[in-house]
Amino acid sequence: MNISSPVVALAGGVGGAKLAVGLAATLPPGALTVIVNTADDLTLHGLHISPDLDTVMYNLAGLSDSDQGWGIKDDTIGAIELLGRYGGPTWFRLGDVDMATHIRRTQRLSEGARLTEVTAELCTALDIQTRVLPMTDAPVATRIMTPEGELEFQDYFVARGTRPKVIGVRFQGADSAEATPEVFDALLEANTIVYCPSNPIVSLGPILAIKGIRERLNKKPRRPRVGVSPIIGNAALRGPAAEMLKSLSHKVSALGVAEILHDYLDAFVIDDQDIHLLPSFLDLDIKARVAQSVMSNLSSKKRLAQDVLDFAEKIRG
Amino acid sequence: MNISSPVVALAGGVGGAKLAVGLAATLPPGALTVIVNTADDLTLHGLHISPDLDTVMYNLAGLSDSDQGWGIKDDTIGAIELLGRYGGPTWFRLGDVDMATHIRRTQRLSEGARLTEVTAELCTALDIQTRVLPMTDAPVATRIMTPEGELEFQDYFVARGTRPKVIGVRFQGADSAEATPEVFDALLEANTIVYCPSNPIVSLGPILAIKGIRERLNKKPRRPRVGVSPIIGNAALRGPAAEMLKSLSHKVSALGVAEILHDYLDAFVIDDQDIHLLPSFLDLDIKARVAQSVMSNLSSKKRLAQDVLDFAEKIRG
Repeated sequence: MNISSPVVALAGGVGGAKLAVGLAATLPPGALTVIVNTADDLTLHGLHISPDLDTVMYNLAGLSDSDQGWGIKDDTIGAIELLGRYGGPTWFRLGDVDMATHIRRTQRLSEGARLTEVTAELCTALDIQTRVLPMTDAPVATRIMTPEGELEFQDYFVARGTRPKVIGVRFQGADSAEATPEVFDALLEANTIVYCPSNPIVSLGPILAIKGIRERLNKKPRRPRVGVSPIIGNAALRGPAAEMLKSLSHKVSALGVAEILHDYLDAFVIDDQDIHLLPSFLDLDIKARVAQSVMSNLSSKKRLAQDVLDFAEKIRG
Repeated sequence: MNISSPVVALAGGVGGAKLAVGLAATLPPGALTVIVNTADDLTLHGLHISPDLDTVMYNLAGLSDSDQGWGIKDDTIGAIELLGRYGGPTWFRLGDVDMATHIRRTQRLSEGARLTEVTAELCTALDIQTRVLPMTDAPVATRIMTPEGELEFQDYFVARGTRPKVIGVRFQGADSAEATPEVFDALLEANTIVYCPSNPIVSLGPILAIKGIRERLNKKPRRPRVGVSPIIGNAALRGPAAEMLKSLSHKVSALGVAEILHDYLDAFVIDDQDIHLLPSFLDLDIKARVAQSVMSNLSSKKRLAQDVLDFAEKIRG
């Protein structure tokens, strides 16, 4: 089946990175642009860290640790241990080789380069054919409201291991942040939009919170917007999506995810085991189909990517 | 023999660090202050690197690579290789664990801490009892004049492997740099001054180029100033000291070193094999004695330190 490229995928961290790898391996070189959440970015040790950008980039470059899904394969942690001895925080386990990315990014940003430019430089250096774009060059920070008070995202996610109950989420800076010209162009040119199986609240949520992006994701003739559920049954393969959906009073299912993305979604791929949900999608006016959505290796990533692209072609028009 | 502490040692890199280790192991805890050359400092990858401070610090902490004398034992180089892939310079082979020191220093300096304060913090974290002081908090940069033009020190030293002929040396910023209050206090309190076996031109030279330091090293009753020659025979154990002495028209011998330090020197320890030079020191009005000056392990470092301190006691008064 012909694929109408270019394709734009919206992604957060590990789940998004996996589907991005599948899409990149399926589409012609250069046909894919991934717009990545940056609201999880943080500064530690004076270094600018962009966890989701790095996860997408390392996965696309084939550098990532396939067990944990993020970081660099076989990386060591000597630097973070010495930083800890120096009194720095160690809860964010930066790898030794990984550190080079944060050092380089920080240096280039301090020289005045935009995050979009730095990301492009890093991707070029890593021979990545896919265009990887931060959702914005402006600072946006996910803040998690919990019974213990408002937490920075990585404090909630890593330092506290997602244990606090989430009673609200806000994206500090999103109101004034602008999408970049590169994001605008990619969305203008895209013939297919893919929502990766990323947390709809804290991974796709920040991207959708950028006003310019929202508008450019609006319904457009012959441009399918296809999502993939990060929830299978009533659980997420990884991360706090399920607990977060529940505590924020969403359905803890693929259906709950689709409801959140509803205004920007035409079609949704759910896991085989959620086949019983298909009728409910009719009520949502969202087309749905099932697929094997667990991506444990390259072939399952490519198979899911192909299913998503086939679905897009089928509903185009 | 009683030792009149406190002792201040002036040091550059590896040779200085080795004698500092010997002195620290010989003197009572807290009795030693090492004033370290910072004119080799450089910024790479946006990080503030202080090679001599790090060498002294790592050696005192027992972290150093005893083969090469600098860097951290068994360190890996994955980060610098990735930085190279990103387009950064790789001729300065920063280790992965070592990177933590540069990251922390850079962060603390950017927060407004003085280099002296940051160095003290790092040393405290590494359980170093010896006080390690940068010669100044101000930027001073050794510039090497060569037939190819003027080079930054590390460009000459590392990138070009000391191959260019040295026709002149200057210390950019030294005229306006001030020694720190900590350096002034240490020099005021010191009952013994030791010049480590460091390059007299580019390691001790910059320290002596700081006006406030020079004045405080002036002759003082009952305060011996004892040096150790970095030249044995007509060669340096390491580094370009011999070639540099020659091309700058100094004698390539312990005597040539003593002549350079002459105005701030009372006594000089030279190697056993240079015993024939002893009469010449009489002409210089500098007391001299021989010792085994090659420091290949802790016991030879301690032995040389003891010889230096004994010599100081002998000539005190």
